[in-house]
Amino acid sequence: MTPYLTERIRLVDKALGRYLPSARTRPATIHEAMRYSVFAGGKRLRPILCLASAEACGGEVEPALPAAAAVECIHTYSLIHDDLPCMDDDDLRRGMPTSHVKYGEGIAVLAGDALLTIAFEILAGAKSTSRYDIGAFISELAVASGSRHLIGGQVLDLEGEGSEVSLNATQLRYIHESKTAALLTASTRLGGMSANVTPARLAALTTYGKSLGLAFQIIDDILDVTQTSEKLGKSAGKDEATAKSTYPALFGLEKSRQEAARLTRKAHEALKPFGKKGTRLHELADHLLDRDY
Amino acid sequence: MTPYLTERIRLVDKALGRYLPSARTRPATIHEAMRYSVFAGGKRLRPILCLASAEACGGEVEPALPAAAAVECIHTYSLIHDDLPCMDDDDLRRGMPTSHVKYGEGIAVLAGDALLTIAFEILAGAKSTSRYDIGAFISELAVASGSRHLIGGQVLDLEGEGSEVSLNATQLRYIHESKTAALLTASTRLGGMSANVTPARLAALTTYGKSLGLAFQIIDDILDVTQTSEKLGKSAGKDEATAKSTYPALFGLEKSRQEAARLTRKAHEALKPFGKKGTRLHELADHLLDRDY
Repeated sequence: MTPYLTERIRLVDKALGRYLPSARTRPATIHEAMRYSVFAGGKRLRPILCLASAEACGGEVEPALPAAAAVECIHTYSLIHDDLPCMDDDDLRRGMPTSHVKYGEGIAVLAGDALLTIAFEILAGAKSTSRYDIGAFISELAVASGSRHLIGGQVLDLEGEGSEVSLNATQLRYIHESKTAALLTASTRLGGMSANVTPARLAALTTYGKSLGLAFQIIDDILDVTQTSEKLGKSAGKDEATAKSTYPALFGLEKSRQEAARLTRKAHEALKPFGKKGTRLHELADHLLDRDY
Repeated sequence: MTPYLTERIRLVDKALGRYLPSARTRPATIHEAMRYSVFAGGKRLRPILCLASAEACGGEVEPALPAAAAVECIHTYSLIHDDLPCMDDDDLRRGMPTSHVKYGEGIAVLAGDALLTIAFEILAGAKSTSRYDIGAFISELAVASGSRHLIGGQVLDLEGEGSEVSLNATQLRYIHESKTAALLTASTRLGGMSANVTPARLAALTTYGKSLGLAFQIIDDILDVTQTSEKLGKSAGKDEATAKSTYPALFGLEKSRQEAARLTRKAHEALKPFGKKGTRLHELADHLLDRDY
């Protein structure tokens, strides 16, 4: 972990701590459960991308913090619901018991619902000083999180699991785009929007986010094959066990690695208009490509 | 059903049909499931209250439609999740199989998530022409739906079910306020806000909504005891079977009826500043008191 990432995680955690109701707020169970999952040691990739995108556009970190916290709440809610017995049925997440194991299924469903809801509450409470009004921020997050993207990807994943027919590359890319790339792209776009980004640079951030998101998911699939559960903090080897279609399963490890590297280069290229200010985003793409957990 | 209600339901249904993605939108399963629950014959109480509140404030129906559709999406999502096996475990809703019976638990969780998300997308896409900006609309809905209100009420309900210790009147009122009154109040307030309501009248709508919401929940509890499942379109007698604390259980039927009537009178009184324009809201309160399903 670089000092930069450590500092950013601290900043994001502080903001999240401020935005979430205290664990003693009535009813205590739900607020405890929300905080349990939010503070379970996430890498804070989405909020860090959001802040770095604001800076790449010449903005400050402060106006990007509501969006940074909101995307992390959405991400955490999606993990809680994905881990439920009726979905991926995972007991372990980031090395800790998942929400339904710790609090029971009912509270886990509600904790996810509450994090999804508070994401919009946080954004709605922010004041926009840029050309984009609060409605534009909310639309951005709602569309990326909705039935055509984040939720839609999970639907396809759920329908594909254990199915006899394996997906083709186009279908798999569609799932990855929906399930992972959409929220990563929204994170970069929201950061840019908080810094009053021009339409041309917003398009560049979109290309960056989408390429990075696809690379990220391919690497996730590779790590599921090559790493231990202990290292990942979640159940490894699960994709193969559930006959899930993945890049390594379709193309093999070597070709998958090449594709992730190609997408990372594409992300790097998209950053050209940002010049030196894009350095952090450039490094983040490298960091994600090289990670081993 | 009065001609007024029939016309309003038609209007709300048309708006919902427009805002929700078509059932053929990819992935089709989730959009089918969203529409299945939204168009399962709901009474549209919340959107009708929203539209009537806009008119009570001298506004038009059109600018209130996004909020009307949004509150119904929130209401429907909360029913889908409440009916899940890990929550109230209900197979029947409005006389039809519940979402998880029809589509499986995984899709039911995701359909609820998607309706919650689209509620904010609908509101964010609206243009506010009143003194309240879109952020104010989103905050209103997010707070009423969040962990301190709608979701919080379900948490308390879940924790109370089958518990040995029955609740006292204060605790029960708190659950009713959270679970039912908060969203009904938000429905009236959002309608008023779309019509550029003054702060004084917004406070009056709040008193109306809160009183109406409490009366509504008491009547719901009474109907659970006195009506058949067939009439209600959901499992009757369930509260007693699950040892749920209710007004009739705590105070008996007669006292419960008196309390519902008292709250309805309080709702009526709150409407005085609206004069003749408040007639529809007045009638709606009567209608809810006298209903038998």
